[in-house]
Amino acid sequence: MSAIHPVILCGGSGTRLWPMSRKAMPKPFLPLVSAETLFEQAVRRVAGDERFAPPMVVAGATHADIITAQLGDAPGARLVIEPAAKNTAPAIALAAALLPADAVMLVCPSDHHIADAAAFRAAALAAAALAREDWLVSFGIAADRPETGYGYLRRGEPLAGGYAIRTFVEKPDRARAEAYLASGEYSWNGGIFAFRAGQLLAEIAAYRPEMARLVLEAVAGGATDGVCFHPAREPFAAIAGDSIDYAVMENTARAAMVPADMGWSDIGNWAALADALVGEADDSGNIVRGRADLAACSGVFAMTDGPRISAVGLEDVCIIVSGGEVLVTTRDGAQAVGKLPGAINQ
Amino acid sequence: MSAIHPVILCGGSGTRLWPMSRKAMPKPFLPLVSAETLFEQAVRRVAGDERFAPPMVVAGATHADIITAQLGDAPGARLVIEPAAKNTAPAIALAAALLPADAVMLVCPSDHHIADAAAFRAAALAAAALAREDWLVSFGIAADRPETGYGYLRRGEPLAGGYAIRTFVEKPDRARAEAYLASGEYSWNGGIFAFRAGQLLAEIAAYRPEMARLVLEAVAGGATDGVCFHPAREPFAAIAGDSIDYAVMENTARAAMVPADMGWSDIGNWAALADALVGEADDSGNIVRGRADLAACSGVFAMTDGPRISAVGLEDVCIIVSGGEVLVTTRDGAQAVGKLPGAINQ
Repeated sequence: MSAIHPVILCGGSGTRLWPMSRKAMPKPFLPLVSAETLFEQAVRRVAGDERFAPPMVVAGATHADIITAQLGDAPGARLVIEPAAKNTAPAIALAAALLPADAVMLVCPSDHHIADAAAFRAAALAAAALAREDWLVSFGIAADRPETGYGYLRRGEPLAGGYAIRTFVEKPDRARAEAYLASGEYSWNGGIFAFRAGQLLAEIAAYRPEMARLVLEAVAGGATDGVCFHPAREPFAAIAGDSIDYAVMENTARAAMVPADMGWSDIGNWAALADALVGEADDSGNIVRGRADLAACSGVFAMTDGPRISAVGLEDVCIIVSGGEVLVTTRDGAQAVGKLPGAINQ
Repeated sequence: MSAIHPVILCGGSGTRLWPMSRKAMPKPFLPLVSAETLFEQAVRRVAGDERFAPPMVVAGATHADIITAQLGDAPGARLVIEPAAKNTAPAIALAAALLPADAVMLVCPSDHHIADAAAFRAAALAAAALAREDWLVSFGIAADRPETGYGYLRRGEPLAGGYAIRTFVEKPDRARAEAYLASGEYSWNGGIFAFRAGQLLAEIAAYRPEMARLVLEAVAGGATDGVCFHPAREPFAAIAGDSIDYAVMENTARAAMVPADMGWSDIGNWAALADALVGEADDSGNIVRGRADLAACSGVFAMTDGPRISAVGLEDVCIIVSGGEVLVTTRDGAQAVGKLPGAINQ
């Protein structure tokens, strides 16, 4: 059976992890959970396993140097440079157009954390098997709390190693999220997919014909430079950007999912990072990275790139000192960090 | 009637206002409430009023230069340099020994804020009148909340412009503080006093004879250098330090108080400073000094000497960025700031 082609998307800006995540050095390229960056983890997760081909990385030109440095010695890896940011559907279509039509592609965001890489690979194999039967497969992340920040997938009829998807659900309110969790029929939509490349292009052509045409034109007019591929700027810039969920997954009759219980987090904000680091917490649930003195604090996440943090009496607060900026947010407020002036006007 | 001699004590370290208050530049010399420092306010409060003589400032050698700079053009001002920090009783005794025996001295901490200077001066005149009759007079600060961080004075029999003091009370617990407030018989002990200089020395000689002897020896062996007076180091260093409350006020039969309702605060911690700045608060009770963006915050006090502060969702929290240190404390936790490693190991 042919190898699975990992396609790693590096498009996220990570503004909710400001001030550490910056335009020039965003979230995927930061060592947030461990000494490795999230991008390095995404690459390593499928490296050294002959069932997986070398990765294809899709990113903007701004981050090409960081990516090359963090890829390190990755024989066969390719880098596709997007001439413009157009959301996930065009990025995935670019990769699909550069792969053989019968190749199975495994689309992975570069800015998520997955604690159990073996469970990830097992889910990838199950997803690939369905993709070979022309299912468009989403990873259904095991939901363990009534999260209102994610979309949900509702299971339909069982398939081999997975399920057809009955419904895609947008981010729900708290009451609906609780009902989803209680029902056991719903998983989180984690943005990880398996597609047969030709099938994916055909589906985009069906639902977004202009996007498909422009992507193929950009690839036809593109240029290869070592491991980098540069699609033609003009047609790609003319694309109306869209997410793969809107453009394809919510339209197709062939949407499937594989269940994945793998310690996943999108590290979507400082509170989510604190959750991912819970193994480092002290008896009061405090997590410290860098110099910090905490007195009478609980559930505090304090991280600094230099200046000492001193805190007294706080509960469930994140304190981040990075690059000369000081951010203090409640865990509940962490979702709103991306709307702060500092995060917007970088 | 002879003028009242202000004696301004600069002994406090202000560690609870760390990281802004540092050993080299402590609380009295910082522009905390207004553009003027607390010390400058203490000097100005009685300046340009012929009922008050030029001030005598008592301080350690470390701060002599700051004091000279902040005194500015203050004709007749004198500076007494303590060879060692020995708490308030020896500092006040030094000043008393340098004044004529019949001079009335008005002892003021240099690190308090008084919003109503006219009310202060009126109380000072009433206190001076009692001091001339050989009462040892404490300012009884009008209590407006059941504060547990201050000592209390209980009123006894009425005197002209004041009361004899019936009891000195140490910092009470919350229940007792509430009872004191409800009774209307108690005021806060604000550490502001009026004494006849000779009377004060006689009282110290009565209750702390060794202290009185060593202070007089230090003055006799001291040296004048311009506006500065340097007591002899050896006898002063040999003094067993003590507060004026313990050494004299709680022992004497002549303790009196004048009521003072003058917008007083000892600016004892960051929460107290925020209270003193309440006039600058926005509709959500937030107070900002320097660059700060607050989202969904209430009762937040954010102050920075440079780096921007960004905050989300906080309630009743103080965020202080100063000299490369970042402090975040609840208002309730502000009392404990002085015990942080950063404040202790300066």
